[in-house]
Amino acid sequence: MPESNLVGLGVYLPARSVSNAELPALEPPVPLAELDRVGILRRGIASDAEGVVEMAVSAARRALAEAELSASDLDFLLLANWTERRYVPDVAPRVQEALGARQAFAFDVGSACSGFLFGLSIAHGYLQNPRFRRGMVVASDRSSRRMRPGSRATLVFGDAAAAMVLERDAKRGGRFIDYELRTDGARNAIMEIGQEGYLRAHIKQGELNALAGRSIAEVCRALLERNQLTLDAVDFIIPHSGTAGVQAMIAEYLGAPVSKILTNLPEIGNVTAASIPAALYHFKRIGVVKPGQLILSAAVGLGWQFAGALYTA
Amino acid sequence: MPESNLVGLGVYLPARSVSNAELPALEPPVPLAELDRVGILRRGIASDAEGVVEMAVSAARRALAEAELSASDLDFLLLANWTERRYVPDVAPRVQEALGARQAFAFDVGSACSGFLFGLSIAHGYLQNPRFRRGMVVASDRSSRRMRPGSRATLVFGDAAAAMVLERDAKRGGRFIDYELRTDGARNAIMEIGQEGYLRAHIKQGELNALAGRSIAEVCRALLERNQLTLDAVDFIIPHSGTAGVQAMIAEYLGAPVSKILTNLPEIGNVTAASIPAALYHFKRIGVVKPGQLILSAAVGLGWQFAGALYTA
Repeated sequence: MPESNLVGLGVYLPARSVSNAELPALEPPVPLAELDRVGILRRGIASDAEGVVEMAVSAARRALAEAELSASDLDFLLLANWTERRYVPDVAPRVQEALGARQAFAFDVGSACSGFLFGLSIAHGYLQNPRFRRGMVVASDRSSRRMRPGSRATLVFGDAAAAMVLERDAKRGGRFIDYELRTDGARNAIMEIGQEGYLRAHIKQGELNALAGRSIAEVCRALLERNQLTLDAVDFIIPHSGTAGVQAMIAEYLGAPVSKILTNLPEIGNVTAASIPAALYHFKRIGVVKPGQLILSAAVGLGWQFAGALYTA
Repeated sequence: MPESNLVGLGVYLPARSVSNAELPALEPPVPLAELDRVGILRRGIASDAEGVVEMAVSAARRALAEAELSASDLDFLLLANWTERRYVPDVAPRVQEALGARQAFAFDVGSACSGFLFGLSIAHGYLQNPRFRRGMVVASDRSSRRMRPGSRATLVFGDAAAAMVLERDAKRGGRFIDYELRTDGARNAIMEIGQEGYLRAHIKQGELNALAGRSIAEVCRALLERNQLTLDAVDFIIPHSGTAGVQAMIAEYLGAPVSKILTNLPEIGNVTAASIPAALYHFKRIGVVKPGQLILSAAVGLGWQFAGALYTA
């Protein structure tokens, strides 16, 4: 089977990053010290000029630059986005157009916070076709538009986009090794966006954290087992960083040392589907993650959909 | 490369099928004779008990029965649906759960009326992975919920679901030969679902028909050329049947004899993404399309996304 290489990564964070002290007051009010204890210190809040399309295009351009490719080199473009999703049309074609990726077919991927990993698996499938050589998966979400003002969710979520370029048999970049996708439709309704357009939970935070921890551990174990690896062989775990609680749950359920679990959640908030590529980008840039190291990523998304990926940085 | 075989097909049409005489009055009123001249004579209107999920599950069960498989045999389930699409969660997991396809991962595919063909291409990609053996693509749309009551669109669209089971190297059923996917993001905004939830056109019907005809001809030509075929080698063209006008446009732009273009548009209306599998099912059932015959299908979807597929029945 042909290999998919990860040859470019790009991130866009909104110009405005809001500290807990600057965060619009919650209702009921929460003291600053308690907000700080949650473990999320800043989050980006996009302006109207930084919509899902604009953020996606910025992240995509940076990823293409790192890959030393131009938009016209792309055979396809997949957009993981749930915060501006419409009945019709898809949003991905607007990114394709704004980026100038005229040769690329483009469509939306849902799967909420697990959308980036579902997108990677789709991209890997297309790259098995000798006709296609390069594709991009972008995750872009403006979550601040989907949180009721004053709700605790405004503390947790941040706006951002992140993009990854994949190239078939590139003999460069990281290597996409394996993936695992699962769905538990019985849990479809635990959270939703209501008619008013804001996120609503029908599950307690503690239960959600435990479910997320179990789900992430499940896909990670499946990947390790199938690839005859132990956790020791993995250099870093870069999970979807839902909340600070999820990190602890992953450590607990997977039995991984916390020091192996990388997240930039405190600095950028839960940036939904963009969280894994955004963290990978950050930790590569500061030199913690080095080229060739083995990374295990996993994400959960409302649906209930969960996914894992094994790759080298 | 492993082959993807088309081993089961199923369709669900709503219990209530409405003739032009029974159609709720249009505003402004249109005489019955003029309605009949449009060429769409009946369309299904789903009840609340026939939602997107219920219709999808019914079509899926029939497709599984034809394939002599059970839901637990499925490795994945893709749902092309735009009429009940939400921010979160995806709808596909509800179909997975209701169907009892516990082992299958499931997610939504958008791409409007071209969603079934985009879904087939994704499924074909997954089936390149030796871990997966069988998957399903379902298209289910309740368009009657997305048309302003009294609008001319209520004449054109019908509710329906259709499902196809794909199996890797099955040595039975039809064979998925090739596909072509394209996107023109510059035309993203020609039609949309407005805030009120109803379809709105920003393009004249004649222009839309010409664009659809050109787009369908473009992907068909690309498929024929790449596979070194002429139209003579193709037994039938089964296009997405948008409107009666689109059929004529396809004949004109592709230079195909109208007798080769199969559609059941007059009997069921434009059933969006389900139109190609629903027509294939119908014409196989009545014996017009015979096993092994070469079929060329193509669809256009708001986005602007268009797609073609070459396969045997």
